[in-house]
Amino acid sequence: MTNPIPVDLPVAYRLLNHGPTVLVTSAHQGKRNVMAAAWSMPLDFSPPKITVVIDKATFTRGLIEASGVFALNVPVAEMASQVLLAGSSSGRETDKFMSLGLSVFPSSIISVPLIAGCAAWLECRVLPENAIQEKYDLFVAEVVAAWADPDLFQNGRWQATDLPSTRTLHYIAGGQFFTTGDVVDANRSQK
Amino acid sequence: MTNPIPVDLPVAYRLLNHGPTVLVTSAHQGKRNVMAAAWSMPLDFSPPKITVVIDKATFTRGLIEASGVFALNVPVAEMASQVLLAGSSSGRETDKFMSLGLSVFPSSIISVPLIAGCAAWLECRVLPENAIQEKYDLFVAEVVAAWADPDLFQNGRWQATDLPSTRTLHYIAGGQFFTTGDVVDANRSQK
Repeated sequence: MTNPIPVDLPVAYRLLNHGPTVLVTSAHQGKRNVMAAAWSMPLDFSPPKITVVIDKATFTRGLIEASGVFALNVPVAEMASQVLLAGSSSGRETDKFMSLGLSVFPSSIISVPLIAGCAAWLECRVLPENAIQEKYDLFVAEVVAAWADPDLFQNGRWQATDLPSTRTLHYIAGGQFFTTGDVVDANRSQK
Repeated sequence: MTNPIPVDLPVAYRLLNHGPTVLVTSAHQGKRNVMAAAWSMPLDFSPPKITVVIDKATFTRGLIEASGVFALNVPVAEMASQVLLAGSSSGRETDKFMSLGLSVFPSSIISVPLIAGCAAWLECRVLPENAIQEKYDLFVAEVVAAWADPDLFQNGRWQATDLPSTRTLHYIAGGQFFTTGDVVDANRSQK
């Protein structure tokens, strides 16, 4: 893995544009957690905003409500089993970073662990939208810093990769994910 | 193309789970439109709800606000150039279905054209969330009917397909899309 490089904030939305499943990391007062989320998307360009669904039953929810921050980590195919387990076990009793063997490194602006080996990372600060948080479990957040593996995302866009293990994950159901495949250039394919 | 089959509403969220770019269709009082949207996601299981970002500047926005309904159509790779053009031209002056050569068929519950040749379709009724509509251009809607091409989505989940032309589209930037690639089964890849 190449060291993460900063992603310009006006193109940070592109890290989620293609609909990857993400790992949500959070921390508060010595506790930390990681969960999987298939339901996140960009919401605005600049300043960049995103939305993500965080169920009330999750341990993550309490950490985020207490700290007001979280990170979205974009995992790659070789992490598929860890992503599945992060989404199907709770961090209330155990430290999932330890049990899943996930290495972390520090974030730059917020105080939340980022997961090593991912393709990209978005550091997010929750915007106060309590009504839809309560009603729909829907969080709106501003992206305050973003990072990417330059082998996978460079010059503001995802790069095609020949390594299947480094492709992003897109959840189907029942433990199955699509990985990204061929790139179609619609400018060239115009009839 | 095989005739669409109904998708059980409790699994309708799976049509968007993997993050495809969609075509939003809308209609009101004899006007109709289609636009592309990379920013949509599931919001709830049952009754199924989705969110989608519809900019205030779009012709679609007015049609949806007037009618209270829209459809999300999940296009496939062979439609990439039409999706790109649907996202980069306005339907205010021209009928984009005609100019893009898109055939339509009737929806079942709402009154909005569905686009032939797509992989799946979600008929949606807008839920009254005016505050976030205005502030973030974010629409929350209930899925009231859903359909899929049974060659591509069957038994409640997306099927792997050997035909590149039938894979769903996941927007990168600048006219480029990822298509779905290999399926990873995380249950089998657990270490």
